[in-house]
Amino acid sequence: MSDISYRLYYWPSIPGRGELVRLTLAEAGVDWIDVARLPKEQGGGSGAIVERMKRDDAGVVPPFAPPFVALVEDGVEQLLVAQTAVVLDLIARRHGLVPSDEATRASALQLQLTVADLIDEAHDSHHPIASGLYYEDQQSEAARRAADFVGTRLPKFLGYFERAIRARGGPFLLGAERCYADLSLFQVLGGLQYAYPRTMTRLLPTVPHLAALPARVAALPRIASYLASDRHVAFNQHGIFRHYPELDT
Amino acid sequence: MSDISYRLYYWPSIPGRGELVRLTLAEAGVDWIDVARLPKEQGGGSGAIVERMKRDDAGVVPPFAPPFVALVEDGVEQLLVAQTAVVLDLIARRHGLVPSDEATRASALQLQLTVADLIDEAHDSHHPIASGLYYEDQQSEAARRAADFVGTRLPKFLGYFERAIRARGGPFLLGAERCYADLSLFQVLGGLQYAYPRTMTRLLPTVPHLAALPARVAALPRIASYLASDRHVAFNQHGIFRHYPELDT
Repeated sequence: MSDISYRLYYWPSIPGRGELVRLTLAEAGVDWIDVARLPKEQGGGSGAIVERMKRDDAGVVPPFAPPFVALVEDGVEQLLVAQTAVVLDLIARRHGLVPSDEATRASALQLQLTVADLIDEAHDSHHPIASGLYYEDQQSEAARRAADFVGTRLPKFLGYFERAIRARGGPFLLGAERCYADLSLFQVLGGLQYAYPRTMTRLLPTVPHLAALPARVAALPRIASYLASDRHVAFNQHGIFRHYPELDT
Repeated sequence: MSDISYRLYYWPSIPGRGELVRLTLAEAGVDWIDVARLPKEQGGGSGAIVERMKRDDAGVVPPFAPPFVALVEDGVEQLLVAQTAVVLDLIARRHGLVPSDEATRASALQLQLTVADLIDEAHDSHHPIASGLYYEDQQSEAARRAADFVGTRLPKFLGYFERAIRARGGPFLLGAERCYADLSLFQVLGGLQYAYPRTMTRLLPTVPHLAALPARVAALPRIASYLASDRHVAFNQHGIFRHYPELDT
């Protein structure tokens, strides 16, 4: 049997989209190296991400942004893949985190991309003008966008995922068994709780199946063990999910 | 051999993300019904989309938003899939619009999701606060966001796709043969030309491989025939790509 491991490239100090990959790697039970969290003298640090992104390897489609992942088989890099959903689909397929029939695999990816849309909108609720500017430089615009997010978009997304869980009988998105999209949804619900605690306290009782999901995911043995480890990166004020009380209305 | 056709659900009067699906269906050479563009008495109109989206079919993951597609085999609906990239990957795999090996398929999906990110940002350049509000109600915010889009984000995306084409030798994204992501990139470049003609005239000479792509895609016989047909929906001021001269700085 071949020896498979992964090299994850993601910013070392924020959970961001990298945490979606970490959760999936943990549940897959595989080995991985979190490249940028290695010491610099071992080839780590943010510089390692930038360097790898700029490297032109003939035949390899370059990543546009982190996270991206290299698949290493028997010590040889076989594959470089970017875009979170593609990375997750690839790992999931190889390690039993999604059923192998094409229809269910498509459904999982559809759900994952809807989670990704919610992530994008959660981010833009505090950065509606430019990622490259500080929050303080777009605070009035953020107030307007967050009001729409909290009042319209977030309830729509939460209601959708409630309905999706019910469609296949629950308790997970695809039914009785967890898939990688459940892990991402778990992370997003945690992020929303961190960023918008008042709003979530108000909305969660309206989506009981969805509200029950995080405890189930956190109780998966490999996830529980991962969350208790120092590989896990906690939410903070530099990531996608940030707590600005003035936006949580 | 089974008889396969598709039912596309997308808003009837804008190109939007639906046009990405139409281009792929056209290049696949398959039959499809554009449900919402049928007359109401034949089950068409926007109402047909909303009705189908709200329908709860046991076991079927519901769509969050159009476009979504039903696959019909020998007259029986086999599959309902949403999220543009998943729809395209599914059609492409069945009809030879992407190589079948997993690594290349992942690269195509990665490229498609990067095209999708550019589409999202192009849309938000004129609607940075809320999709549900008029442009006129977010015009000052749009001016700020569009400045960042035109000055920073768009050049970064165009430079990326130029590099991606070169990585595998061109002239298409994966090399000698076109894949579904080329069709989407063609549509996006057309949309950007429509929305930001001054900016594109300035930027395109810096990305010669990318600038050569649209003519190659438009010359594919099935695409040429599709574009000349009345199935094709042209750009207009209600879609993702809108021409507001004040944003094209």
